[in-house]
Amino acid sequence: MTPLRGEFAFIDLLAKSVAGTPEALGLADDGGVLWLGDGRKLVVVADMLQAGVHVMENATAAQLTSKALRANLSDLAAMGAEPAFFLNTLCWPEAPDDAQMQALADMLVREQNRFGAALIGGDTILGQGPLTVSVTALGWANGPLLRRAGAKVGDEVWVSGTIGDGWLGLGVAQQNITDLPDADARFLRERYEYPSPRLALGVRLAPLAHCALDVSDGLIADAGHLAAAGGVQLCLDPQRVPCSPAARHWLSSQENRPQALEQLMSGGDDYELLFCADSTDHAVIMAIGSELDLPLQCIGQVLEGHGVMLGELKTELHHPQTSGFTHF
Amino acid sequence: MTPLRGEFAFIDLLAKSVAGTPEALGLADDGGVLWLGDGRKLVVVADMLQAGVHVMENATAAQLTSKALRANLSDLAAMGAEPAFFLNTLCWPEAPDDAQMQALADMLVREQNRFGAALIGGDTILGQGPLTVSVTALGWANGPLLRRAGAKVGDEVWVSGTIGDGWLGLGVAQQNITDLPDADARFLRERYEYPSPRLALGVRLAPLAHCALDVSDGLIADAGHLAAAGGVQLCLDPQRVPCSPAARHWLSSQENRPQALEQLMSGGDDYELLFCADSTDHAVIMAIGSELDLPLQCIGQVLEGHGVMLGELKTELHHPQTSGFTHF
Repeated sequence: MTPLRGEFAFIDLLAKSVAGTPEALGLADDGGVLWLGDGRKLVVVADMLQAGVHVMENATAAQLTSKALRANLSDLAAMGAEPAFFLNTLCWPEAPDDAQMQALADMLVREQNRFGAALIGGDTILGQGPLTVSVTALGWANGPLLRRAGAKVGDEVWVSGTIGDGWLGLGVAQQNITDLPDADARFLRERYEYPSPRLALGVRLAPLAHCALDVSDGLIADAGHLAAAGGVQLCLDPQRVPCSPAARHWLSSQENRPQALEQLMSGGDDYELLFCADSTDHAVIMAIGSELDLPLQCIGQVLEGHGVMLGELKTELHHPQTSGFTHF
Repeated sequence: MTPLRGEFAFIDLLAKSVAGTPEALGLADDGGVLWLGDGRKLVVVADMLQAGVHVMENATAAQLTSKALRANLSDLAAMGAEPAFFLNTLCWPEAPDDAQMQALADMLVREQNRFGAALIGGDTILGQGPLTVSVTALGWANGPLLRRAGAKVGDEVWVSGTIGDGWLGLGVAQQNITDLPDADARFLRERYEYPSPRLALGVRLAPLAHCALDVSDGLIADAGHLAAAGGVQLCLDPQRVPCSPAARHWLSSQENRPQALEQLMSGGDDYELLFCADSTDHAVIMAIGSELDLPLQCIGQVLEGHGVMLGELKTELHHPQTSGFTHF
């Protein structure tokens, strides 16, 4: 038996032994896809989240379910699909009272209206251990399917929004970061707890980008996934990585700022889209960002090789010291 | 706020507040359905299972995932759909070793081949608490959709296979039942751990039965669901409830046999199909059972009224003393 190491080794093992059907996309992407007779594609993704792992231990069922839904919608966005439906399974650690059930129902109504994804099924159980939620989201891809593989040497590497807020928000929630102004702390915690799936962007990128994924394991780790899937190297320029004002405030208080910036690039939970596109499409992509009122930043370049390098483009590069989150 | 009581009250609350889209089927069935442009229907179901609740505490990830998959396929069967794909999310309580990962992958290959459902996605996390699995299964319904609602006064009530084995198997696994011959104990435990989704039957029943569900909460509780959905009463004759030889051995050792029989009718985890059909279709249904080599037994009748009554048909009826399993 080949020795396995951790989460990605497990996915590789499954991909080799189980994922024979084309709909599985070799388990290489965030979900599977059904090609329907009427020319449409139905993308299906599933993620499990647990209190104490993906949200704070004392998070409510409504909070955890909201984040689980948004993480799944982010996976749909990364594949260029528009959300349509979702199913939600939930394990309560103890029997919920009326107020908890009402809060969950209210949240589901709110999120359903916000994202245009309708709850069509699920399951609730009473179990042991922390609150645990699994969401399956289904969405329509009417254009080409965005995949992790496809980066081409010479492509520009882009990221949406800002990087590091989710990780800083976790630090705020855990009271590891206590020296920020209240407004910054609130902003970062909101970014950690209620990520914004970049749905409109995903659909616009589908016919344009060569590859994409959503940044959940951390920018560097996820860039590594694009590099591996494409058989190329991604070179990222830390100085170009977009940070929110709150993250810049935090950065300015850090002694070793290059190292601190690398931490932001290694934290997870950004739920921004990372994608590669032809450099001739630079202006088109900038225009999409303006149109959607969502900053899009070119942060690097695709080179021959493998893995991720950090450095100012066309100058000396160095290997990142940290890496992203894996579950085991 | 309306007071809520338990699992079904929660589903009712969700159904009222969230399930506006036709694809949700009012959250009244085991899953949702997508009507596709090419005339096909895609049925989507999701169930979460946890070690210590749905399987023994010391069950392996492979065992739990197998049962979760089969429970979902049983939901597809109950709606008349043929399985096509599934997604699997799993929370490991501790980092799995190579052998555990390999065993899970091997099981997935086995089940995939057995049931014709291909893994197309999922997620694995490392968390706290017991092993927890959520499976989403997708299947094609090419005929009419089987639903919980639809029982008509005068219909016959049918059940497939045998009832009570799952509950007895749990008793064996928990060592609450220790006085059975080894072969019986093994059979019952197998029925508890590896339920058989009645997929071929579901497809055959779709154009014929007026309503159906799979027996997971217990025969009496699930008959109550059909009664409530149809606005009718289901009268079940305990003497007609089909029991396996192993269950009959256990029954014969019980002092109060009518009460013991009612326990078998209240235990969960049967994963047999319970359905109602016109009495003029009696012979057709018997023929389907013969063809599929799966005993189908007429166990009762649909009457005016509500709820479930037990009794020899056309004689005095009594309300069941016990009821099925609810999660909270």
